[in-house]
Amino acid sequence: MKPSPLAPPHLPELHPVAGIRLATGQSGIKYKGRDDVMLMVADQPVAAAGTLTRSLTCSAAVDWCRNQLSAGRAQAILVNAGNSNAFTGKLGEESVRRCAAATADAVGCTDHEVLLASTGVIGEPMADDKITSLLPEMMANLSASSWADAADAIRTTDTFAKAASRQVTISGAKITLTGIAKGSGMIAPDMATMLAFIATDADISPPLLQDLVSEATDASFNAITVDSDTSTSDTILILASGKAEMPTMTQRDSTEAQAFLDALKDLMIDLACQVVRDGEGASKFITIRVTGAEDARAARKIGLAIANSPLVKTAIAGEDANWGRIVMAVGKSGERADRDQLAIAMGGVTIAKDGQRVEDFNEAPVAAHMKGDAILIEVDVGVGQGQAVVWTCDLTHGYISINADYRS
Amino acid sequence: MKPSPLAPPHLPELHPVAGIRLATGQSGIKYKGRDDVMLMVADQPVAAAGTLTRSLTCSAAVDWCRNQLSAGRAQAILVNAGNSNAFTGKLGEESVRRCAAATADAVGCTDHEVLLASTGVIGEPMADDKITSLLPEMMANLSASSWADAADAIRTTDTFAKAASRQVTISGAKITLTGIAKGSGMIAPDMATMLAFIATDADISPPLLQDLVSEATDASFNAITVDSDTSTSDTILILASGKAEMPTMTQRDSTEAQAFLDALKDLMIDLACQVVRDGEGASKFITIRVTGAEDARAARKIGLAIANSPLVKTAIAGEDANWGRIVMAVGKSGERADRDQLAIAMGGVTIAKDGQRVEDFNEAPVAAHMKGDAILIEVDVGVGQGQAVVWTCDLTHGYISINADYRS
Repeated sequence: MKPSPLAPPHLPELHPVAGIRLATGQSGIKYKGRDDVMLMVADQPVAAAGTLTRSLTCSAAVDWCRNQLSAGRAQAILVNAGNSNAFTGKLGEESVRRCAAATADAVGCTDHEVLLASTGVIGEPMADDKITSLLPEMMANLSASSWADAADAIRTTDTFAKAASRQVTISGAKITLTGIAKGSGMIAPDMATMLAFIATDADISPPLLQDLVSEATDASFNAITVDSDTSTSDTILILASGKAEMPTMTQRDSTEAQAFLDALKDLMIDLACQVVRDGEGASKFITIRVTGAEDARAARKIGLAIANSPLVKTAIAGEDANWGRIVMAVGKSGERADRDQLAIAMGGVTIAKDGQRVEDFNEAPVAAHMKGDAILIEVDVGVGQGQAVVWTCDLTHGYISINADYRS
Repeated sequence: MKPSPLAPPHLPELHPVAGIRLATGQSGIKYKGRDDVMLMVADQPVAAAGTLTRSLTCSAAVDWCRNQLSAGRAQAILVNAGNSNAFTGKLGEESVRRCAAATADAVGCTDHEVLLASTGVIGEPMADDKITSLLPEMMANLSASSWADAADAIRTTDTFAKAASRQVTISGAKITLTGIAKGSGMIAPDMATMLAFIATDADISPPLLQDLVSEATDASFNAITVDSDTSTSDTILILASGKAEMPTMTQRDSTEAQAFLDALKDLMIDLACQVVRDGEGASKFITIRVTGAEDARAARKIGLAIANSPLVKTAIAGEDANWGRIVMAVGKSGERADRDQLAIAMGGVTIAKDGQRVEDFNEAPVAAHMKGDAILIEVDVGVGQGQAVVWTCDLTHGYISINADYRS
C-alpha cells in the first residue's frame, strides 16, 4: 500500500512516558508477517479515561470499556487489528471477557483494570486465543521505547503509522504526553475504526482526566471527518501514570489543568489530522473555519455539514472553488445562519460577503490556492460569536476504487 | 449526455388535466438550442399547495412560493432552468418580483397567484428579462398536451425527462393526476435541484390539498437521496383545477381523500424514483425497507442513514453484499435499534439475525442479486412497529467524474 500523498515525511520523535511500557505481537488472525496486537502496561493501576463511539451498534470491546472507565483506573490496554469483534453477539462478549481475564493474569491486576479495543472485519467471531497466547511473550518484551512499533501494530488499512508526542512544564515538572492513532476511513471488506491510545506521566485525578480528554476530543477527533461514516469501534483511551514529581491535579479551573489540556488538545489535534491525512483516496487536506455561529456547537455542525458534503469534497478534488456548494452545505446544516450576511473566503480571499459574490472578485489567487494540497475554507454565518475548526479531505476516484472496486 | 443506464425505456402516457395548459420557451440564459422555460396556467385561480426545501440558504423563488402558498390559490407556475437565482441577495428578490408581475400581466391574475421556481447556477444574477420576454409567445402556445415538452424544458443535467400520470375514480368521476420532475444530484459547476410540478382536475379544498401533498412528499421525495446534499431550491407544486364533476373534497378522513392520496402518493413515488434513476453516476437502483423501528420517522431516519452512507453505496457499486456496513449505518443513525435483535436481508435472503450472521448463510443467491441493477435491502431493528421505505442509488466513479473532473 503506497503511503498517502498527504503523509508526513517521517514519524516524529516519540518521548517515552515514565511508568508506561509497550509491546507488540503477531496473531496471524488476518495479517501475515506483521505485528497486529499491542499491549500497553502501566507499572500499577493508574488514572484512566477515554471517549467511545456513540454508535448504537458498538462492538463488544466498546461496551467493555464503557463499563470499566466509570471506575477511572486501569493498568493495561490490549488492542488487536484485523477483527473488530463487532456484531458478534454472545460470542463477542465471551471473547472480551476471556481477553480481559488473560491480560489481568499476565499483568497481575484485576479484569476490571484491563481496557480493550479491536479493529477490523465486522461480524466474524474473533479467535481470541490467538491474541491471548501472545501475552507471555509481550510481557517479556515490554519497553518504554516501543511507541513506534505500537503505532505500526494497530494499523489496518492505514498507509502510514500515526503518532505524536508533547512535553510541557507544569508545577515545575516536565510532563510528557505521547500517543498513537489509527484510522483512514473504511476499507473493503472491513469497517475501519479510529483508535487512539495516549499515555502521560502527569499526576491527575481520574475525574479531571476524563473531563479534559472529553474536552480535547471535541476539539480534535470529533472535529474530523473522512466520509461521515461512524465506526462501531471508535475508541480513545488515555493512561496517566502519575510518575511526574508534581502535586496531583484535581481542579478544572487551575492553571495547571489548563496547561495540561492545551498540550493534550494540541497532541490530539495532531493525531486527528494525521488520520485525515490518511483519508481513503485523499489528495487535499482541508481546514474549515466557521465563525459567526450561534455557539461553538452550531459552528461545528455547520463545519461538518460542509466537510461531509460529497459535492464540496468532489469540487475540491477537482480544484474548483465552488462556493455555491458551500452555501448549499451551510443551508442544509439546520443551524441558524443569516443568508444575507454570509461571507465565504477560500485561501484567504473573500469570494462572497453580505450574501452575494463580491463585485471585484479576483479568481486567480483562489485558483492557485486550489491547486495546492492544503485548502482553507472560511465561512462567517453572521448570527453570533460561535466558532469552530473542522478538518477533512477531498473525495476522489481513489475513495471509490478502495471501497467499490473489488468483489467480496 | 448519455441517458442513465437506469432510465425507463420511454416516457409514459401523460393524460391531459382538464383546466390546465402548458407551454415552453427558449431563454438562452445558459442552454443553447433547447427550451429552458416552462409556463403552467390554470383557466382561473385554483387550489394550490406545495412543499419547499428546508434549506436556510434557500433561493429567492422558494421564499416567494412560501409566502404565496399560505393563501392556497394560484393560477400560474413559471419555471426556468440554467440559473437558480439562489444567493443573489436583493437582486434575486427583485428578479422574482419582476417575474411574478410579468406573468400576472400575461395570464390576467394577481402577482400573488403566480408561483415560481428556478434551477441552475448559484450566485449569478438572473437575466429575468430573457425569461419574461417569452411570456407572450408562451401564452399563445398554451396547450393541455404539452406535458412532455414541459418535462424536457425543466431539465438541467438530467439525462432523461421525468413524468408520470395516474387516473383514479372518485365519487364516480374519473380524476387525472399528471406530473413532471427534474433532478439528478448536483452537477458542475451548478447545484442541481429537485423540482416537481403536478396538476389534477380533482375538486379539493386548498388546506386538504396541502395536507395530502405534505403527506405524499414524506413517502416519496423525502424518502429519496442521491448524495445527501439538500438543494437551496427544492420545490414541489401542485395545482388542482377542480374541473372534475365531483363534490369538493374537504375532509382528510373521507374515503375520497384517501383514494386521492393513494393516487397522488403513487404518482409522486414514481416521479421520485425517476429522479433516483437519474442519480449522477448511478448504476444500481436501491430499495431499503426498514421495519421494527420505534415509529415511521425513526424508520425513515435509519433508512436514510443507510442510503447516505458512502460505504454502503460504494459496496453496492462493487456488487459486494457488505452487511457490516449496514450494521454500521444503523448504529450511526442515532435511532433506537436493538443490536442483538437486528436482522438484515439482501435480495430477500436473510444474512444476519438476532445480532449475528446466520449460521447456514448461503452467499450464492445474494451474490447473484448484487449483480443485478435493482438491489433490495431489508433491515429489521427489533424495537417496535415503525416502518419506512427509502430509495437511493450507488456511488460510483461516475459521480466523482461528473462532480470533480473539471476545472471551473
